[in-house]
Amino acid sequence: MSPRTPAPIEKAAPSPRETMAAERASPPFDVRRMIYAMGGGQRNVELKEKFMQEIERDPLFKLSDIHDLTKNQIRERTMAKFQSMVHYVVNERLDVFTKRMELVGIADPAFWTRFGVHYGLFLGAIRSGATANQFSYWLEKGVLGLNGMAGCFGMTELAHGSNVAGLETTGTFDEGSDEFVIHTPSVSATKWWIGGAAQTATHCAVFAQLIVKGVVHGTHTFIVPLRDPKTFSLLPGITIGDIGKKMGRDGIDNGWIQFTNVRVPRAYMLMKHTQVTREGQVFKAPLAQLTYGALLQGRTAMVADAANVSKKALTIAVRYAAVRRQFKVGHKEFESQILDYPIHQRRLLPLLAQAVAMGFTAVQMTAMYESLTAQLESFGADSDEVETKDVLDKLKETHATSAGLKAFCTWNGLETIEKCRASCGGHGYSSYTGLSSMYNDQAVQCTWEGDNTILTLQAGRSLVGSYSDALAGTELPGGTSYLNSLPSILTISCPSDADTLKPETIDNAWKCVAANVVKNAHGQYEKFVKEGKGKEEALEMCSQERFVAAKVHTAGYIYRQFREALVELAQKEDPSNGVVATLEKICALYGVWSIEENAGYFLKYKFFTPEQMDIITAEVNALCLELRKCAVPLVDSFNFSDHIINSPLGVYSGDVYKVYFDRVRESNPHESVHPYFDRIIKPLLEREPLELDDAEEMELDEEIAEMKSERDEAIKEAKAAKKALKAKA
Amino acid sequence: MSPRTPAPIEKAAPSPRETMAAERASPPFDVRRMIYAMGGGQRNVELKEKFMQEIERDPLFKLSDIHDLTKNQIRERTMAKFQSMVHYVVNERLDVFTKRMELVGIADPAFWTRFGVHYGLFLGAIRSGATANQFSYWLEKGVLGLNGMAGCFGMTELAHGSNVAGLETTGTFDEGSDEFVIHTPSVSATKWWIGGAAQTATHCAVFAQLIVKGVVHGTHTFIVPLRDPKTFSLLPGITIGDIGKKMGRDGIDNGWIQFTNVRVPRAYMLMKHTQVTREGQVFKAPLAQLTYGALLQGRTAMVADAANVSKKALTIAVRYAAVRRQFKVGHKEFESQILDYPIHQRRLLPLLAQAVAMGFTAVQMTAMYESLTAQLESFGADSDEVETKDVLDKLKETHATSAGLKAFCTWNGLETIEKCRASCGGHGYSSYTGLSSMYNDQAVQCTWEGDNTILTLQAGRSLVGSYSDALAGTELPGGTSYLNSLPSILTISCPSDADTLKPETIDNAWKCVAANVVKNAHGQYEKFVKEGKGKEEALEMCSQERFVAAKVHTAGYIYRQFREALVELAQKEDPSNGVVATLEKICALYGVWSIEENAGYFLKYKFFTPEQMDIITAEVNALCLELRKCAVPLVDSFNFSDHIINSPLGVYSGDVYKVYFDRVRESNPHESVHPYFDRIIKPLLEREPLELDDAEEMELDEEIAEMKSERDEAIKEAKAAKKALKAKA
Repeated sequence: MSPRTPAPIEKAAPSPRETMAAERASPPFDVRRMIYAMGGGQRNVELKEKFMQEIERDPLFKLSDIHDLTKNQIRERTMAKFQSMVHYVVNERLDVFTKRMELVGIADPAFWTRFGVHYGLFLGAIRSGATANQFSYWLEKGVLGLNGMAGCFGMTELAHGSNVAGLETTGTFDEGSDEFVIHTPSVSATKWWIGGAAQTATHCAVFAQLIVKGVVHGTHTFIVPLRDPKTFSLLPGITIGDIGKKMGRDGIDNGWIQFTNVRVPRAYMLMKHTQVTREGQVFKAPLAQLTYGALLQGRTAMVADAANVSKKALTIAVRYAAVRRQFKVGHKEFESQILDYPIHQRRLLPLLAQAVAMGFTAVQMTAMYESLTAQLESFGADSDEVETKDVLDKLKETHATSAGLKAFCTWNGLETIEKCRASCGGHGYSSYTGLSSMYNDQAVQCTWEGDNTILTLQAGRSLVGSYSDALAGTELPGGTSYLNSLPSILTISCPSDADTLKPETIDNAWKCVAANVVKNAHGQYEKFVKEGKGKEEALEMCSQERFVAAKVHTAGYIYRQFREALVELAQKEDPSNGVVATLEKICALYGVWSIEENAGYFLKYKFFTPEQMDIITAEVNALCLELRKCAVPLVDSFNFSDHIINSPLGVYSGDVYKVYFDRVRESNPHESVHPYFDRIIKPLLEREPLELDDAEEMELDEEIAEMKSERDEAIKEAKAAKKALKAKA
Repeated sequence: MSPRTPAPIEKAAPSPRETMAAERASPPFDVRRMIYAMGGGQRNVELKEKFMQEIERDPLFKLSDIHDLTKNQIRERTMAKFQSMVHYVVNERLDVFTKRMELVGIADPAFWTRFGVHYGLFLGAIRSGATANQFSYWLEKGVLGLNGMAGCFGMTELAHGSNVAGLETTGTFDEGSDEFVIHTPSVSATKWWIGGAAQTATHCAVFAQLIVKGVVHGTHTFIVPLRDPKTFSLLPGITIGDIGKKMGRDGIDNGWIQFTNVRVPRAYMLMKHTQVTREGQVFKAPLAQLTYGALLQGRTAMVADAANVSKKALTIAVRYAAVRRQFKVGHKEFESQILDYPIHQRRLLPLLAQAVAMGFTAVQMTAMYESLTAQLESFGADSDEVETKDVLDKLKETHATSAGLKAFCTWNGLETIEKCRASCGGHGYSSYTGLSSMYNDQAVQCTWEGDNTILTLQAGRSLVGSYSDALAGTELPGGTSYLNSLPSILTISCPSDADTLKPETIDNAWKCVAANVVKNAHGQYEKFVKEGKGKEEALEMCSQERFVAAKVHTAGYIYRQFREALVELAQKEDPSNGVVATLEKICALYGVWSIEENAGYFLKYKFFTPEQMDIITAEVNALCLELRKCAVPLVDSFNFSDHIINSPLGVYSGDVYKVYFDRVRESNPHESVHPYFDRIIKPLLEREPLELDDAEEMELDEEIAEMKSERDEAIKEAKAAKKALKAKA
């Protein structure tokens, strides 16, 4: 053994604040202009900043303590927030208020949900399903201002979610009393997951099978009072329970409802599309599918939300990675910032590019939805055939596009949050660093408003249809217009290695490969149909291929939306401010990284050679390294206040350890009496030292031996006595 | 408008119980034999069943209520469980007890953690770091039976996790008093995440920089008393706080610790490997890396745990999918079981195959670790050079293998839980269905005991080294032996389309592609070294390539382990019971599905043609369809009691809706007084109807007009007065 050569004491590294300041020293773009570019222009940015300031100063929007509130505390706070928000919903222009709620949704997803249940789902059901007179009636009852009523939305049942047509609850017309009888026939028909039902709703929009004169007419909507608004006691025939703890969004009180022969006036069935007369005649309007337009609003909003939550998570992860130091590499003076590690850049920067891409896509998606809404509003009984076809086409395209985007963007958001959380190492596991609850809140976005897997299959089904249309010579609009170039689009490829990274090559790559996977899904479908399968069964059998088609198509769609937005931006942005140039790099990273992620298809359809795929991978590495230099100014450009970020690891200043330490200490004040020392720990530590179980200690064998000898003795004695007796006889 | 053609009322589908019974009617294998095959043989299975019965009857292991306990309640229950478990740890053979804990870990991961902190980390640190006399001392103090002491493990700090060498806490030798002074120099040096520190530990194994005579000697371990075991009051110089809420595992009380000039006797430094004499001389033993062997136990256990949690999650998802019905396809009589949808099979069955593959791999990994341990125990000062090289080689291989397996298996486990949760639709979001807390508990497995990303890079670094060795002609053992076939292994390919699915083709595919990605990582590394980069920097620069190498290598490794286990099993299993035949299908599914998942590499290195990849995809579909038929008997073969599964959706009987409904109702009893109606809801609903803000209502303009006319009047009067005055003058 020999004395070890000692290491010198290290020179202290720059402080986190100093490190963070250095990251912002020379951004390659004008940060304010970038904020405008990513935030939809100066006006929208200023509105957002106004909203951020307002909610930061509103004590009900305190966010720092949310991780330690009980379920009831957080539900109570959720309802308290209605007070100020109702003011805005009544007074603000709809487009302004929509932006306000977009922000509120990032800060407090559970409140956004409770609010959306009343204004989006309940009021939305009335708006789209009520006749003019019915609508006036509910307005007068107070639905708009939450006066005397708060709504919930009774669609899903314990045993039925996605298949609305299969719901079991019944709404039976009683001609005698001119009423509907709403009834839950079995436990599995219990209305389930109903947000607001457990504690906060007075009325419910109930989806039930309309039964008139013994005939079932399918699912319709009935407004059913649940509670007396003055006392909140349940009305006769209403049984309600609390769904209790959930993975996330505990601020919303989901409940279950059973109806036992509950009677409502006939007028409480929403009758815009189907009418039941006093005599029990049932009339149904054509084009009922136009009402589905309303369902698309939620999906559209969720695309924007997915971009926003991704940006929020990335702000935390990138800022933390910029100041966290770990390991010295080679002869460096200090431990390295973890953002300097290529693998860490790989973990975060492609996701950053994807978040920006989703952000620009969301703007286009919103515009598409708004244009559809305008068209639907001007559509009426006097519209001619051309207008009808037009609006139906638009609806179909908007539906398919929003289905694919909702699914893949909410999945992307969830994955981004998880990867950001894991990139923070152990600290990502603390509730106070915010990413774990973001994950738990986001998860449900992938399930509700159309389960993601089902939506991808709908998008895939639509693509199979588009492929048929294209083969039949129909000119396809918008997102699927690349199929107009069939069949040549299927067989194009990268002209040469030198062309690999050109934007038009990347663009063609996505179009070619998307066309091929769509062709594959279509081909499988046709094959099964030719084999004699029914249409639905054939579609089921090619569901994996439909899924792949939707996945590749949507990734390429997002890339194109990003590119188109940049073309527009380049027309108004001064090139010297570096905004467009930087965004072009981000767009390029999104393009090449998502090609790498889907490498199998690009090789299979021979758009790229293996050598070109190496060029792609090298470019991902190079762009990560390039964007790493401005990663902090980029997340600064996402423009979230520290209050909205609500994570010590993501504070603007970079002073992460101090803020984190203070937050943990403040959230867990010293308990002067140990909660369970006397009851549990003291008896545990003070019990007698354990010894090995040892049956011998009981001296059982000695005992048995003793018993045996006693018995032997007794037998001997008995024998002797017998003998003596015999002898006597 | 015309009356709509009504639909007939549907015939009721078979009940969930009936549906589940039908799934078990004719399994293609002997379920009990399958249980033995998957569970490591009859003896292990019977032990597991004994443990399951014991904990099910232990009231402390009640699991049905865990989702509604507060943090302190769940921590208290965690500590109460020690009482019975200490009995077993002292009385049971180590191998039996290890199996017991493997099961307990699935039922209650937080207890497993608290228990492991004392017995695995704290006692483990003493066992591997103490001299013989020191070890006896701590045994006598009561460390084995938890008498008068409970330990925690003070490694990580607020600003340092993975880089143990960079820890800031100091242990300075004071020659005057023959003591060490343990000190926390700054907030960022605060010991952080220390499990057990917040409320339950009396002693801590503190990692600190050893400083003797002003010279830093690197990180060493000191046993530091924290609390008086009689009163639990903190000892002088100890500051402790609670880390509070975490993403999961709230049963363990993580805390932070600051030491302020805390003095411990010199003998409290663990001195097996480094000794500090009374006079302040420091001696260090060679081969200190042998102590790292102890670290591998945790990783090895986590591979088995990843397989187990995956199987538990899949039991829930598969049983639920078997009884859940949604949508009618074509002319079917009833709504379809969702497990009958090809896309649902695709979501679950490849993950089932992966879980089984990980299960068999874990058995082999454990055997490798145990053989290393035996070798390390027999290794001593008298071991010769050959023995030394041998044990170091073994250590290196076990380290690299366990690093890759720990990382990818814990990630696989996390992903499996999430996909199972999402596959349950909305109900997956309820806490009571169990998958959300499984996710939250599992997430940390990817970070602690070696952050997964760092471990993959270590595995990748080892592969780069193995490639160099192979080029130099060294014969490689075990998992990397395919590199002995360089260079021919790099360029083999599938001989023909007809050979695509042969097991030996799949096996060669994995070897070929793994060899290529390892070669690629090695080549990048060599390139950077040739360009003049230092070794560490060159390794960093090829980290993405190392990551890919580790990923592909490990997937192939798992496939081979599975195959080898089947060869062994085939020798002892009666072919007529169907066990091996079914497992071969599962192995085949794992093989082809993971090829499909990594398609890009198999195409890039031209092992398969695009057409052969289509054959692979078709085979994944076909095997999913095939295994779907016995999916329920397969998850039955995972052999978990309903108590361990702890999810209404995964009950053996299939009666999911009743059990789920009852669980939710029992967990959320009716509250007779609404917790916040009077305070929040009543004032909200009863306030005056809101009106649009309207400044005119204030009649400000009239007021202004009035004020103006008054002022005009006054001016007029003043003028008149002036005029009159003037006239007078």
